[in-house]
This record gives sequence, structure tokens and C-alpha cells, in this order.
Amino acid sequence: MERVRVGLVGLGTVGGGFYELMSRNAGHFEKKMGTSVEIARVAEIDTAKASRSVPRKILAEDYRRIVEDPEIQVVIELVGGTDTAYDIIRSAIEAGKHVITANKALLALRGAELFALARRKQVELKFEAAVGGGIPIIKVVRESLVGNRIDRIMGILNGTSNYILTQMSEKQLPFADALKQAQEAGFAEADPTLDVSGGDAAHKISLLASFAFGGWVDYRNILCDGITTVTPGEIEFAASAGFCIKLIASAVLVDGKASVAVFPALLPDRHPLALVRNEVNAVFLQCDFLGPALFLGRGAGANATASSVASDLGDLVQSLILHARRGGYPFDPSRALDLYPDSEMEYRFFFHFITANRPGIWAAVTGRLAENGINIESVHQKWEDPSKPSDLYVLVDEAREGQANKALREVCSESGISEQSRFYRILPL
Amino acid sequence: MERVRVGLVGLGTVGGGFYELMSRNAGHFEKKMGTSVEIARVAEIDTAKASRSVPRKILAEDYRRIVEDPEIQVVIELVGGTDTAYDIIRSAIEAGKHVITANKALLALRGAELFALARRKQVELKFEAAVGGGIPIIKVVRESLVGNRIDRIMGILNGTSNYILTQMSEKQLPFADALKQAQEAGFAEADPTLDVSGGDAAHKISLLASFAFGGWVDYRNILCDGITTVTPGEIEFAASAGFCIKLIASAVLVDGKASVAVFPALLPDRHPLALVRNEVNAVFLQCDFLGPALFLGRGAGANATASSVASDLGDLVQSLILHARRGGYPFDPSRALDLYPDSEMEYRFFFHFITANRPGIWAAVTGRLAENGINIESVHQKWEDPSKPSDLYVLVDEAREGQANKALREVCSESGISEQSRFYRILPL
Repeated sequence: MERVRVGLVGLGTVGGGFYELMSRNAGHFEKKMGTSVEIARVAEIDTAKASRSVPRKILAEDYRRIVEDPEIQVVIELVGGTDTAYDIIRSAIEAGKHVITANKALLALRGAELFALARRKQVELKFEAAVGGGIPIIKVVRESLVGNRIDRIMGILNGTSNYILTQMSEKQLPFADALKQAQEAGFAEADPTLDVSGGDAAHKISLLASFAFGGWVDYRNILCDGITTVTPGEIEFAASAGFCIKLIASAVLVDGKASVAVFPALLPDRHPLALVRNEVNAVFLQCDFLGPALFLGRGAGANATASSVASDLGDLVQSLILHARRGGYPFDPSRALDLYPDSEMEYRFFFHFITANRPGIWAAVTGRLAENGINIESVHQKWEDPSKPSDLYVLVDEAREGQANKALREVCSESGISEQSRFYRILPL
Repeated sequence: MERVRVGLVGLGTVGGGFYELMSRNAGHFEKKMGTSVEIARVAEIDTAKASRSVPRKILAEDYRRIVEDPEIQVVIELVGGTDTAYDIIRSAIEAGKHVITANKALLALRGAELFALARRKQVELKFEAAVGGGIPIIKVVRESLVGNRIDRIMGILNGTSNYILTQMSEKQLPFADALKQAQEAGFAEADPTLDVSGGDAAHKISLLASFAFGGWVDYRNILCDGITTVTPGEIEFAASAGFCIKLIASAVLVDGKASVAVFPALLPDRHPLALVRNEVNAVFLQCDFLGPALFLGRGAGANATASSVASDLGDLVQSLILHARRGGYPFDPSRALDLYPDSEMEYRFFFHFITANRPGIWAAVTGRLAENGINIESVHQKWEDPSKPSDLYVLVDEAREGQANKALREVCSESGISEQSRFYRILPL
């Protein structure tokens, strides 16, 4: 039987999970692939710790032992970060090796360059684990949907944020308490900024949109709002109106252009994504032939990530057995995708005005909305203590985001209305 | 650019949908695949009708024009049925052509033979559209889960049955009325037997289990119960206890053996499959590394089916571009899978005893259950008119299916208890 030789760089949580998968399920894998796969070398800086699970004779401290080994055909980068990981991936591709990575931050930052390099060197750079963890969404988008025009992608792609919003909603917790609970439960990092700011979801949706729509989307060019300002009061009001609040990573084709963004949004309770609780990830797709579809699973964790790395490895083994490179590239990394302007996107909106408690506030708010052509559906005031600011929740009819932004600025310029006032987009069923 | 030549047999609903997809999305498809695909010939008995959408010069009445054409590399069989379709697929494989089909009934019946023939002739027989319609579940199981041991598959694989059960539940309709409504809405055939008997779901889960577990499962060897006896009273009682009733196609590994079955089951309201309404299909998977995952989408209809046929075609185009055959087969069609005995499966159960209305019934029922070692959780009697039979709903603790069957037979042998009494399995969250 032929044998495919693999080098694994990084034996932390994810690398360790993948090493365990290959140890435990090598038999399954070989039977399904019709060939055997050998983890020929593992590179890990902490060799002392790594030697507890990996035989010393295949262990190395320096990843170059893998990249420079002519027998190794596939390099799996699972160290994370954007510095050493970049060196590992670039040098592996330049050495003519296929690469698998779970590193969304690096791909979002330098993917256009790395994918183009892989194309020139006729190797594959695979990253199923980088988006949606264990959910096989990259393969679905690249291969299963090949006959479709993908019209809309809506993802819950950051488990930390979804966990926090779920706990805020189910236990009426403020953000800070829910974050602390997420940290204690192991669903949030000590520094949660990248997760709760929407940044991690922005990395992922940019990658997914690039492959779905066929041109590069730079995450630095997309709208990205996080969940740090969401309050239990907003969640409670949204619930009373039949909505939940989720951090949505959205990519939509509008007039042939891509609108890609991350923001906390109101979803109708009956939307499939409304049911995604805690750390679970999910992707909802709308395609011209398939219609609507939902894919749901674990978005993080050693084992789910390992499952996706193994899927990529299976694909590469197929290519290697066939002694041939795969055909078409699903997108052109050198072509930046035309982005549809955020300000032109149309949504229903949920405004939350934080106001002083005195006559004239309602008139100012409703007047300014009217001047901007925004049609009010309902207004609800939460009012506890007349000496404290009150919360004015306003649901409005469909409007352009530019209109909503302008109206918000103008309302906030009125006396007695806080600059902290804000709005949320409402997504349709 | 290279060109792949395809022959399409059958231009009914599904064939027409696929022809439209290739007409409308040929550009997308070619860009993603890096090659062009030509529908070189279409065979359809009703040439008059077909000629309204297909150019006459590529139209044929006889499928042999396709099978015997040496230029055609891929044959797509979309005529349905198990007679002519068998001849088409067999002769195409024997002519060395790859085949794509959506024909679950035929594959369930003669798949072991056809897959073995394809293997001998070194061609592929692909069938993404046969299970779950547009949901890319075959590809996920074959490729994305290659690193996993698949422990459990639970599917809602028959849209007609799910539509009927949803309508019965939401509108308190009896089965016959909900069936009539499904027929009027186009979600049930004039003869709905195959759907409501569970037969169609049995075809699909047998195929899926074969590929997931690596050996052939003959649908004639699996337990198959339909939904024709489900009543609004049962649904109402189940709901009051926190469950919904769904037709579940189930495949589970128990002690290394496969337990494969189709039956109406009670699912906790919070189970992901409980949320699947009307004609939608879904597959819930439990794997050792991926963990739980859900895939949901349209299970039937021309467009969703066309999407899956296009996915198969995309895979074949990759193989053909590479001028190479794919490597491993995911299962051995000549090896029948060991099935775990149904009687040994353990579930909680929901018994529905239809009884005379007189003293001694409760004692008889509870006595017989006790004799069979079955532990009662709760008993609920629905009792309208003392002169009519009453409904005794009993929830019991976990027991073997053999125990439950024996207890049911013995209770039914008691005077005053109807032979129509029955039980449903309760599946865990």
C-alpha cells in the first residue's frame, strides 16, 4: 500500500487533538482512503511536554526539520498566531508541500498572498477547520454547491459571543457577568477582545465570502460590530417583540456585489439560527437551486477542529494517490471582490435611545426619524426611576443603513439624548 | 479548455430541473471547475414535450443513443422507477461510463450489485440526490467525516411524512385530513404508500448506513414502521409531556454492529430535529471527534435535487480532468453489514393502550408491565364518554425493545384491551 507522509507543526490543544485522532482512527481513515497515512514528524517547541504523547524519534523542536524533509508531502500548521505560522506555511508551500491550517487570523490577514503562492507552486492550501470548526462548510461551499449561485450566507461563527448572548438571554445577565461565566466555563479567553469585538467572526466570514463569491474579501474592509454594548434590557425587549439577538456574520450578493459584515442582529424567533445556543456554531445558506439550508455543529475545541483537519488531509491523500493536482481554483486570490456599500443595505432597524426623562424627548426622537424618512412601527419606553436615564426602544420599517446612521447621529445631537444610543439591524426570516 | 460530455436520461421534474441548472449556471460551474461541461445528449420518451426546452439535435427517444455514444463520459439517470432505470445504469456502467442517479428505490433494491459492478469497471456510481435531496449528506459522510467514527445517524428523510406529522401537530388534524392537505399542497403523491409506510425513508437510511458503516445494509432486513396509525391524541399527549412525534430514520453503532430502523418516535422538544417542520429534511449525526452536528435543507423538489446532481457532476469532472480514477471505495458492497438485533435495542417507551372503560383495566396493564420488568414513569388516561374506548397513555423507563414487544402482546391478550394498542420509542436528547 502507498503511504502518505505528513508533518505536524504544533502539539497544543488543536495539534494534540489531531494527533489523537490519527492515533485512534488510523484504521478507519486508511480503510476509507485506501492508503496509509503516517505522521512522520511532529514539531513542537515544548518537546518535553510533547514527548509524553509522541515518540521521541519523530519529535523535533524546529519546524524546519519538517519543511526541509523531502519525504514529507503534507504540512499541517496548528501553532496559531500570525508570525511563525506565516513562516511555516510560506516555507512549506515554497518547498512544494501541500498545507493544512486552522489559522483563520493568518489567512484573513495574508491569505491573498498565501493562496496565490500556493497556486503558483501548484499545491493546495486547505483550511476547513478555520471556519466553523468541525462544520464542513468550506467543502460544502467549494464542492457541494458547485451548481448553485450562493445568494446569502448568515453564520454564527464565534462560539464565545454566542455563548455570552445565550447566557445573557436565558439568565438575564449583564454582558460582564456572562463574559466572566464564559471564561470560567472555558468558552472565552482571558483576553476575549478578538471574539467579542466581532473580529474573529470577521476573519471567518471574509474567508467564506471569498470562496463563495470567487474573489478576495479583505476583513479590514468590512463593517464589524461586536457585542460588548448589548444589554439585558435590549435582549428582553427584543424577546417581547419576537426576536433574539445574535452576533451574525453575513455575506449577501446585492446587484452582483458582495455585502459582507459582522454585527449583532435581531432574528425572528423562528429563524433557524435563533435556535443555535451557547458555544455551537452554524451557517445558514440561501442558494438559487438548493434553496435554504442549515449546517450546525461544534465551532471550536480540539476534537471538532481535528475532524476538519482530517477532512482536508483526506482530500489531499486523494490528490496524492492520484499523482495529480486538483483542477480549478474556486476563486482568484489576486482579484479583490467588489463590495456593496454598507450604507445602501436595507434592513428593518431596532433603535435604542438612552434619554433623559423629561417632556420633549419623544417629539425630538420621532421628529428626527420622520425627517430622515424613517417609518416607525412601534415605540416602547422602559422607565424605572424618573431621576435616571430611560430607555426608548423603537422598531422601524425598512430603511437604508445610511438613513439609519444619519438619523441616529441627528437624534443624538438633540439635548437629553445620549451619544451611547445605537441601533441593531433586524434580519428577515 | 477541455470539455466533459454528459448524457442526461429523463427530462421529467428532476431531469428538467437539472437541465435548467446547467443552462442557467453553466458559467458558475465552468469557472469553479476550470473546464466546460456539455449536455451532449438528452434522452426522453416524450420527445414532443422535451423539445420545448431542449434543442432537437441533442434529443433522443432511446437512452441507448447515450449509452452507446463513445464521446459521452457521464450518464445521468433521472427517469426513476426500478426497471428501465436499472437497464440504463447497468448498461452505462458496462460501457465504462460514470453514472449519477437520484434513484434511492433502485439503489436500495439493487445497489449491492450496481456498486460492485461499478467497482469492477472502475467507474463511479454517484447518488448525492438520493438521500436528503439537496442536503450534501453523502459527500459529508464519505469525505468530511473521514477522520471520524460515526456513532449515530438520525434523519428526517421523508418530507411527506414530516409534513403530515407537522400539520397534524399544529392544526390538530387526524392523519387522513393531513394527508389530503399534503396531497393538495403537492407534498404527497396520489398513492402515498411508500412515503407514509416509512419505505422511502428505509431506502435512504439503508444507503446512508452502508456508506457510514462500510458494509451493505439491505433495506428489507430493517425494522420499518410508518406513521399511518399516529393519532392527534398521541401527538397532544406527547406534547404535554415535552415531546414531538417525528418519523425517524435511525442508524446507530451498538457493540460494533449497526442498528438500522425507521419508526415514528418521540423526540424531546429541545432536540435539534424537533425543530424541522413540514417538508424539510434533516440529518443529525453524532461522531467521535466532530461531536453532534445537524444538516438541514430541502429533501425533494426539482431544484434541490438538481443541486445535488450538479455536486456529483462536479466531483466527476474533477476525476475526469485528472484523467484518473478515484482511490478507495468507502464500503465493500459485497459484504453485508452485521445488524444488531432490534429486540436488544434499549429505549424509553410511550405505550398507547386502547381499552374498555371499566374496573380492572389499570390493574391488568400495570400488572403485565410489572411482570415484564418494565418500570412505569407515568400513566395518563383520556376519558371522554364512558361508553367508548378510552386511551391509556403510559410512559416507561428504559427497557429492551424485546421486553416492550412482549409486554404489549401480553397486555393486548387481556380482556377489554384492543389489539390496536401500540408503543412508540422515545429518543434521547
